[in-house]
Amino acid sequence: MINRLAIIGIGLIGGSLSLALKQAGQVKHVVGYARNEATRERALSLGIIDTAAASIEAAVAEADVILLAVPMGAMASVLAEMAPHLTDNMIITDAGSTKAGVAKAASDILGNSISQFVPGHPIAGTEKSGPSAAFATLYQDHKVILTPMKQTNVSAVETIKTMWQQTGAEVSEMTVEHHDLILAATSHIPHLLSFNLVGLLAQNEDVDEVLRYAAGGFRDFSRIASSNPVMWRDICLSNHDAILTLLQQYQQQLTEIGQAIQEQDGDYLMTLFQSAKTARDTRFEIPKVTNGKK
Amino acid sequence: MINRLAIIGIGLIGGSLSLALKQAGQVKHVVGYARNEATRERALSLGIIDTAAASIEAAVAEADVILLAVPMGAMASVLAEMAPHLTDNMIITDAGSTKAGVAKAASDILGNSISQFVPGHPIAGTEKSGPSAAFATLYQDHKVILTPMKQTNVSAVETIKTMWQQTGAEVSEMTVEHHDLILAATSHIPHLLSFNLVGLLAQNEDVDEVLRYAAGGFRDFSRIASSNPVMWRDICLSNHDAILTLLQQYQQQLTEIGQAIQEQDGDYLMTLFQSAKTARDTRFEIPKVTNGKK
Repeated sequence: MINRLAIIGIGLIGGSLSLALKQAGQVKHVVGYARNEATRERALSLGIIDTAAASIEAAVAEADVILLAVPMGAMASVLAEMAPHLTDNMIITDAGSTKAGVAKAASDILGNSISQFVPGHPIAGTEKSGPSAAFATLYQDHKVILTPMKQTNVSAVETIKTMWQQTGAEVSEMTVEHHDLILAATSHIPHLLSFNLVGLLAQNEDVDEVLRYAAGGFRDFSRIASSNPVMWRDICLSNHDAILTLLQQYQQQLTEIGQAIQEQDGDYLMTLFQSAKTARDTRFEIPKVTNGKK
Repeated sequence: MINRLAIIGIGLIGGSLSLALKQAGQVKHVVGYARNEATRERALSLGIIDTAAASIEAAVAEADVILLAVPMGAMASVLAEMAPHLTDNMIITDAGSTKAGVAKAASDILGNSISQFVPGHPIAGTEKSGPSAAFATLYQDHKVILTPMKQTNVSAVETIKTMWQQTGAEVSEMTVEHHDLILAATSHIPHLLSFNLVGLLAQNEDVDEVLRYAAGGFRDFSRIASSNPVMWRDICLSNHDAILTLLQQYQQQLTEIGQAIQEQDGDYLMTLFQSAKTARDTRFEIPKVTNGKK
């Protein structure tokens, strides 16, 4: 049970955590801070938070647990603003999509309080944002990854782990670097590849005609190109090392594909496509197809 | 009304055309050929064809319209086998996913009969194949592209256009080259990109753990990596020019993305992502999202 939870950034992610913990009866009081007063008022009126704080200092005062649910680009400044007001009993965690940048910022800024900081990443979301988009079951059966650092206090990790489990999430722990590589592979690179193709087609003056003939495969492939550009810019800038490492491997193999097509090397293509199909079909949990049309 | 329709290759594509025309009352007799006798028997017993032919020669005899619905890799040999048996009144069309290769094979093989050949591509399909997968409404509200060549007889085009319209499809005409470029952009390149990423991850010894954390974005992006490897090998080998042209542009812009990430050039990323999002949101008909989870 958390006595006082402070949420910095009351949107879909922070708001849904609050609603889930309230529904589970695992939090007594939630205080929320958002830069925008209208956002704070909406969160209050929706019952997402019990108190709205007009400053980060006011929000963290007396808090047991502090969640940073602000955009990646704002993490460092929020950490700097709260640092002077942290006391020994507070546990801080975040919900950022990449972990190396936040971990480094926290190490640089939090000083001795770094042992109380548990970097985290709930892998959940919808296409909507803001407090109105929050709902109590967002994390149910979703994964949350915690990436404790060497300096992180073990009992702080336990507190954050329990908190997320109470929302219905499945919590794992791994290193910061491993998290960033896994997320680059399964999320950041796919987004880049999809943004890149749709961005390329968008430059074509016949884009309307081109897209007119696009079928279901393209619809699925390009769905993530509709994601929030600011969020994805920040993720790319933040997770540069892991993304660049994988991007290089990806480009190299794509060049090999081009060579195989040029040389009419069907065996190369067949081997690659078959291994991809096997991995997709057998190693990845595929939800039932609701629409058989391709 | 077609008196006698010959279908070479009785699977999802050819079978569904037959069922659609029968349902619309627009064909009197359908004769089908498949290399495999069991396939022919199944098509007969399902009422997809009225007569099963044991050879291509027997199938095309007396036919008004002949549809080639065999894999891309078999088009040339089937054309060669039927060529000596074609008469002046027969109209031939195909359902191949790329057009330059089929058009060239037809030009090389058909001699004077080339005026009776109408290259075509119904943009429809499901993840299933074979005659049992065929259904009468497959083409309803789907697009069919015809790519007549200089030598193609105008009335032959009209016959094939009417035939597809009777299945409920929307028929367009464009050049062979334009078709292959549009399909490379919206279908072949996305498949390559998805095969490439999943194929790359499949080589990783931790592939199971990596895919464990994949969310909805990856699920959508990678769905087409589950497609038939043989079919996609043939498409890549066949549509080499258009694919290589676009692949080069794609690679170049992907290199720029990598450089932007390296140099922390957020403006470049923001501009590209925003233009992709705008194109995806405004220029592409997005079906209602049935599951908001990403």
